[in-house]
Amino acid sequence: MIIIGERINGMFRDIAEAIREKDPKPVQDWAKKQEAMGSGYLDLNVGPAVSDRVSAMKWLVEVTQEVSDLPLCLDSTDYDAIEAGLEVCKRPAMINSVPAVQDKMDRIFTMANKYNAEVIGLAMSAEGIPKDAESRVALAMELVANCDAYGVPLDSLYIDPLVLPCNVGQDHGPEVFETLRQVKLLSDPSPKTVVGLSNISQGTENRELINRNFAVMAMACGLDAAIADACDEELIAAVATGRVLLNMDIYCDSFVDVFKTQNL
Amino acid sequence: MIIIGERINGMFRDIAEAIREKDPKPVQDWAKKQEAMGSGYLDLNVGPAVSDRVSAMKWLVEVTQEVSDLPLCLDSTDYDAIEAGLEVCKRPAMINSVPAVQDKMDRIFTMANKYNAEVIGLAMSAEGIPKDAESRVALAMELVANCDAYGVPLDSLYIDPLVLPCNVGQDHGPEVFETLRQVKLLSDPSPKTVVGLSNISQGTENRELINRNFAVMAMACGLDAAIADACDEELIAAVATGRVLLNMDIYCDSFVDVFKTQNL
Repeated sequence: MIIIGERINGMFRDIAEAIREKDPKPVQDWAKKQEAMGSGYLDLNVGPAVSDRVSAMKWLVEVTQEVSDLPLCLDSTDYDAIEAGLEVCKRPAMINSVPAVQDKMDRIFTMANKYNAEVIGLAMSAEGIPKDAESRVALAMELVANCDAYGVPLDSLYIDPLVLPCNVGQDHGPEVFETLRQVKLLSDPSPKTVVGLSNISQGTENRELINRNFAVMAMACGLDAAIADACDEELIAAVATGRVLLNMDIYCDSFVDVFKTQNL
Repeated sequence: MIIIGERINGMFRDIAEAIREKDPKPVQDWAKKQEAMGSGYLDLNVGPAVSDRVSAMKWLVEVTQEVSDLPLCLDSTDYDAIEAGLEVCKRPAMINSVPAVQDKMDRIFTMANKYNAEVIGLAMSAEGIPKDAESRVALAMELVANCDAYGVPLDSLYIDPLVLPCNVGQDHGPEVFETLRQVKLLSDPSPKTVVGLSNISQGTENRELINRNFAVMAMACGLDAAIADACDEELIAAVATGRVLLNMDIYCDSFVDVFKTQNL
């Protein structure tokens, strides 16, 4: 599993302030920290309070690229902001995200094709998040079909089954695991899979305990990536262990440290 | 997942000495400790150094039953010792274990039927442990067929896919996960599944990190029970979390403490 570091997000006060003040330091510090913990991508989200999301996203991309070569995951519901970010990305990026809604898929997959970008596709429709695995997989199939129709390679598509907090949507947990398993059978090559990890523990106590155990359980069901707190040492240790136990990385006594150097 | 507490085992010096001196205290202390951590069963193993395994197993059963009502898991390759233990068990017990070898299955399933015992069936033959999931599942099917033929309920059979240390048999890990998934499809009702958890980390550093992550990954693949170190607080927390995430126990903020009181 690959970690997409979640910390450069305007939901956090230091990042919101950095964007407002055009101060690159907090953004660049988090970029370096998350890279040092083994992140494979850096998520960039300008947050809800920004008036000009287009220029904010462009700025985030530019200052992050000054200190890190990691691929970027451009995270916004404002597709103009995503496109502005893609225009200045030096390396192929990831688009976060598109639901299974036709006009949105049309725009995002066109963009993905033009900029050679990967795409996170959400297993939700205009009606919201389905309750069971079968309905999630049906929406994943719509995303796969559109991805293919727009000429985007299927292994550039990351299906997000959508994780709900376990204290309010506990019955969704097994459905998410089942969705992960089934999505890997949808096509050849199969789509990849991703979750927003921290959602599972929203509003609970013991958030890190829940996050790291959900992460490795999902890995055993086929999870390829997670937008997550890369600075949670125990999460990183769990993910590194999961990779060894799935025979994805060769065992050595220092496998946790080795994971951090890989930036997969 | 249910924890079968592994600690009353003559491999440990204090238990070997307790058996030699006929001193019930160490055995009873470990029984109470493991029960307080949420164990559902207590494994009893007289260890390799005992000359009279039959009377040692009988004694272990008797002194354990004086302090705990948990069902016992009689762990020996000496089937006379297992039978002597079964004769004095007050409650239905578990037999640990039988491989897919005909004369051994004949004896063990006959015993299981007579004493209303559960059985751990090992996915190995006289030739040893197979490398891939398919061969393990084929041996599991032999165990299922014999279990059924001897009139033992199929959900009294726990298939152990056999875990090898990840530093020497790393490629077995994904095969074990796949075996767990497939075993649950073998019959209706399906057999249950069990592993000897500590095997996965034998000879590694970070043993507890590996044990607890393997445990929850296996739970996501259908693991029902593990012979494990019930006094590893972080393992217990991980297992309790896994049960919540699989929607087996209802979430509450104190779910780890609640797990310990359940002795499932």
